[in-house]
Amino acid sequence: MRIALDVMGGDRGPEMAIQGALAAVQERNDLHVILVGPRTLLEEQVAGHSSGWHGLRERITVQHAPEVITMDDSPVEAVRKKKEATVMVGFDLVKNGEADALVSAGNSGATMAAAIKKLGRLPGISRPGIAGFFPTVKKPVMLMDIGANVDCRPQHLYQFAVMASSCTRLLLNYDHPRIGLLSIGAETSKGNALVKETHCLLKQGPFNFIGNVEGRDVYKGDVDVVVCDGFVGNISLKISEGLAEAAMQMIKQEIMKTWRAKVGYLLIREALAGFKKQVDYAEYGGAPLLGIDGTGIICHGASNAIAIRNAIEVAANMVRNRVNEAIVHALGEYTA
Amino acid sequence: MRIALDVMGGDRGPEMAIQGALAAVQERNDLHVILVGPRTLLEEQVAGHSSGWHGLRERITVQHAPEVITMDDSPVEAVRKKKEATVMVGFDLVKNGEADALVSAGNSGATMAAAIKKLGRLPGISRPGIAGFFPTVKKPVMLMDIGANVDCRPQHLYQFAVMASSCTRLLLNYDHPRIGLLSIGAETSKGNALVKETHCLLKQGPFNFIGNVEGRDVYKGDVDVVVCDGFVGNISLKISEGLAEAAMQMIKQEIMKTWRAKVGYLLIREALAGFKKQVDYAEYGGAPLLGIDGTGIICHGASNAIAIRNAIEVAANMVRNRVNEAIVHALGEYTA
Repeated sequence: MRIALDVMGGDRGPEMAIQGALAAVQERNDLHVILVGPRTLLEEQVAGHSSGWHGLRERITVQHAPEVITMDDSPVEAVRKKKEATVMVGFDLVKNGEADALVSAGNSGATMAAAIKKLGRLPGISRPGIAGFFPTVKKPVMLMDIGANVDCRPQHLYQFAVMASSCTRLLLNYDHPRIGLLSIGAETSKGNALVKETHCLLKQGPFNFIGNVEGRDVYKGDVDVVVCDGFVGNISLKISEGLAEAAMQMIKQEIMKTWRAKVGYLLIREALAGFKKQVDYAEYGGAPLLGIDGTGIICHGASNAIAIRNAIEVAANMVRNRVNEAIVHALGEYTA
Repeated sequence: MRIALDVMGGDRGPEMAIQGALAAVQERNDLHVILVGPRTLLEEQVAGHSSGWHGLRERITVQHAPEVITMDDSPVEAVRKKKEATVMVGFDLVKNGEADALVSAGNSGATMAAAIKKLGRLPGISRPGIAGFFPTVKKPVMLMDIGANVDCRPQHLYQFAVMASSCTRLLLNYDHPRIGLLSIGAETSKGNALVKETHCLLKQGPFNFIGNVEGRDVYKGDVDVVVCDGFVGNISLKISEGLAEAAMQMIKQEIMKTWRAKVGYLLIREALAGFKKQVDYAEYGGAPLLGIDGTGIICHGASNAIAIRNAIEVAANMVRNRVNEAIVHALGEYTA
């Protein structure tokens, strides 16, 4: 299993990516990571790490890619102009069979654009999308799309349902994943024009459609896949991140008001850290690009080494479990 | 100041509404509350309370309304068929000058429909909307629309900005409220088709437009008004409610893992309750209907007495501060 890793993507620099790669190969003996980035920079970094690489060195190799797509680059332009960028070279490795998947913490729009350009779409898929994992009080839920497609038609949301259903079944071992359509009421009549049309279409799909779900239901853990357009999905994700952060701050503000609570804080600090870990995107290992003819995982720009390691793990599991084959098969069931 | 209160709206029954009314008139001497509901039921309830009403009795009166619109009723049909429903009778009081505003914890779609039918729109307003208050680490932010208009055009969002700007200035005493457009990136180029068009329009408005804001920014407190369509707004609200609830459960699950944390919990319990109070909709006193020619406040269906009292307070402040006059004036500045 060979995973290409874009070391230039994350906000925290190549050091963090390399630490993640190291952690990943330490964990699994069958894993090989190809670091993609400027050769001189990578060789310096690798030299700096050499003492800790005992026995792992041969499972971490370097692929030169001189250009970097930044967060400020326009995805379409960047993909056209920066042909030697890390994500472009990384997806070339996947295309040529030299790597099984690419992991990047870079510009997610550009990563998606590069994937479509280099690998193309899976047969029958019109809009690949990004699937995100959300923590709940029970098991994680997959939300799709979380940002790739801001203006969607019903058939796009239908395909998201097919893809996310196959993915959660194979990646998270969910039996007959429960698919919900994100709306503002459980009734079929509730929602905007897109949702009302999509509802009818989802009823006919080869998956376990349980109807509309509301924002409140996302975190209850009684639905496995939540389908929505990329605008609504991205806002849901960011609102959640913002609230989780604000909640920790508000709780601390309240605690600092009394000595009694300050003492209590010392005793529950670990529990709060446990909660933070639970809601932390880092633990959920990045977001699969679904619908491309190959495997790509996008990590949060602020990813730390654990997040990178988890994303590599998720990428490997996507390949091992042949998620793409299952998607094409499921799509065929309907169009047949 | 006379506020009509729909006692049949909330999930918790008329008892809760009456307690809220009692708390409101206790707090302010210039307040009069008109309970709207079935006369016999109200008279029974009022008789049950009589001991606690010392000196307040004359500031709480009863208006008979025999019908009730339930949460399951279709707003349009209910407003057409149930002419004697509490919200219909309540808005009649406002229309006839017998009340200054109506507060209801009932079916929000029906309350909006009844308001439009009985009071009409403010001159120049094409789509009245519902404005919601969200807590942040700093001051509350107003989000509009939170559910009345699921499919919007740019000019509707423009009018939401005008209305919410006037409302936060007068109701929350925000100087030059900062207006943000909810999107998936700060750049003008980011967002769906609706948001991109709206961005251009908001730049021309008679308010302090600070550009696109992301979901993450909502809870930071660096924006005073967040503009979005009612579909996105409602999902933002419900996702937040769901996550806040799930967060409390997750924190408790973590705390129950060790004795040390359990002891700590006893010491921080009050701080957690303080946090819960902060995020609790109850403290934010309901959601103003903006754009109708009169004053109406919608409360959460699960409202307790404190929420009802706060909503009555907000209704009175809307009237005192002549929010509607300010809206019409601000709208004129642009169309002139």
